[in-house]
Amino acid sequence: MATLKVPATVPPVADDCDQLRKAFQGWGTNEALIISILGHRDAAQRRAIRRAYAEAYGEELLRSITDEISGDFERAVILWTLDPAERDAVLANEAARKWKPGNRVLVEIACTRTSAQIFATRQAYHERFKRSLEEDIAAHVTGDFRKLLVPLVSTYRYDGPEVNTRLAHSEAKLLHEKIHHKAYSDDEIIRILTTRSKPQLIATFNHYNDAFGHRINKDLKADPQDEYLRTLRAIIRCFSCPDRYFEKVARQAIAGLGTDENSLTRVITTRAEVDLKLIKEAYQKRNSVPLERAVAGDTSGDYESMLLALLGQE
Amino acid sequence: MATLKVPATVPPVADDCDQLRKAFQGWGTNEALIISILGHRDAAQRRAIRRAYAEAYGEELLRSITDEISGDFERAVILWTLDPAERDAVLANEAARKWKPGNRVLVEIACTRTSAQIFATRQAYHERFKRSLEEDIAAHVTGDFRKLLVPLVSTYRYDGPEVNTRLAHSEAKLLHEKIHHKAYSDDEIIRILTTRSKPQLIATFNHYNDAFGHRINKDLKADPQDEYLRTLRAIIRCFSCPDRYFEKVARQAIAGLGTDENSLTRVITTRAEVDLKLIKEAYQKRNSVPLERAVAGDTSGDYESMLLALLGQE
Repeated sequence: MATLKVPATVPPVADDCDQLRKAFQGWGTNEALIISILGHRDAAQRRAIRRAYAEAYGEELLRSITDEISGDFERAVILWTLDPAERDAVLANEAARKWKPGNRVLVEIACTRTSAQIFATRQAYHERFKRSLEEDIAAHVTGDFRKLLVPLVSTYRYDGPEVNTRLAHSEAKLLHEKIHHKAYSDDEIIRILTTRSKPQLIATFNHYNDAFGHRINKDLKADPQDEYLRTLRAIIRCFSCPDRYFEKVARQAIAGLGTDENSLTRVITTRAEVDLKLIKEAYQKRNSVPLERAVAGDTSGDYESMLLALLGQE
Repeated sequence: MATLKVPATVPPVADDCDQLRKAFQGWGTNEALIISILGHRDAAQRRAIRRAYAEAYGEELLRSITDEISGDFERAVILWTLDPAERDAVLANEAARKWKPGNRVLVEIACTRTSAQIFATRQAYHERFKRSLEEDIAAHVTGDFRKLLVPLVSTYRYDGPEVNTRLAHSEAKLLHEKIHHKAYSDDEIIRILTTRSKPQLIATFNHYNDAFGHRINKDLKADPQDEYLRTLRAIIRCFSCPDRYFEKVARQAIAGLGTDENSLTRVITTRAEVDLKLIKEAYQKRNSVPLERAVAGDTSGDYESMLLALLGQE
């Protein structure tokens, strides 16, 4: 369900490095060449290129990139070139440091990655920032958001398929009770969302729907603009339907006057090797226009070309 | 600083398995033989024995052990034979399921192991119990203890040596303030203890001592019998002086009428390959009697022999 297009025969790593070096040097930068290489290599190939490049030229590839290009294009190429765990560590660090109630990046990372991926991100975070992710969140976020987000990123969820139906029933009831009393930041709501496995949570949400006649997210919409409730709904959407969650992020990034480039870049770079095909389908279905066309209409230049390459445009 | 004694030339794994099988079979069990083998093999050797034994006899070694021996001796041999991460997972599971405010096992595991060891335990927990450790703690523990213990086991602490002195000063002041107002379960106290790295915490505790004229643990002794305060003090002791923390657990297990075999077995099996030598030194210093002699005086039979073997007695 990835959109990334890797050529049938990939050139030797040394050739890719050589071409990239040429793209950076001389009169002006060859942006098209950068895109044609990095925009068509998978994570393992990009890792090999970074290693070989640093060995061959005594300079980090990411360094050469930031020296030569800038703005949204730079951010897209850098984020894409990073390993998924490093990329998530960088995104999570930005989100923690400049945290605002409307920022959903931490939820996204905590709820749409596997347990092993989140742990790899926490390791990459140590490596890069000499602190832990939960330490930074706990130090920068306050109140109910801290109470929710710290355990959300710290948990190492069981990821087996087992579901305890009785537990799903009792916890659906418990969630309903707390929501009914508007106790949205109650310890039990947070405990359930931050510790149960994804299959268990999905069973709980389904039972909620069956037992109470409407989806849990409908009940969490009492005040549609409240950022804490929006965060709870985002958590539930990330678990239940990540493709539709990301479709909405992309839609909102594109909609209206001006584009939210950071969100658009994030969705495309983090999902191109995962489920961007599903997100594109969801987008087409919801907006009756292909995501590529919407992106092309809202962006321009090398940034546009880079996003379209990752979106799998031929 | 381990006490475990492994012979200079260890027999081939197949011979160890063969001997163990003989010890289990026939008329009565040869307990001395079990101790002479398993009580003198390190974690990697025991792992190799378990694997080879299961292959050779189509039965798990731990199964054969539980079929043949019982009581405190069985518990000591089983806990010892387990891999450290599996052993901690088993101990943590018992502690979570039968949790009582006086139970300090979760604190011990969360605060005296490295970040990588705790993560290995969380993985072993998934494997063995089909749930996550934090999930079980959150489901069984309530109130302030839950607020403290869930993040304590969930954190993946940064384990580099860097210390931020300014932060140590400001957080020592913050801890002092909260403790002064008896706000022992305040979010900030829990945040600091559950997210900062060990070197950072030790710098904070030292600064507390320097700035306020006495150790933080003295200020946390307002009500010496309060179990929540005892838990906070145990956390701080586990970070600052694990050998003296374990000395106290061993001392209290031995002291008085009757022995707390579970605690004694836990200290000896979990520390024999780590720092039991330091714990023995601390014990001798504090009680003017060698730990071996105290253990020999309070236990008997095969259980005694097993503990003494792990304590490094020739």
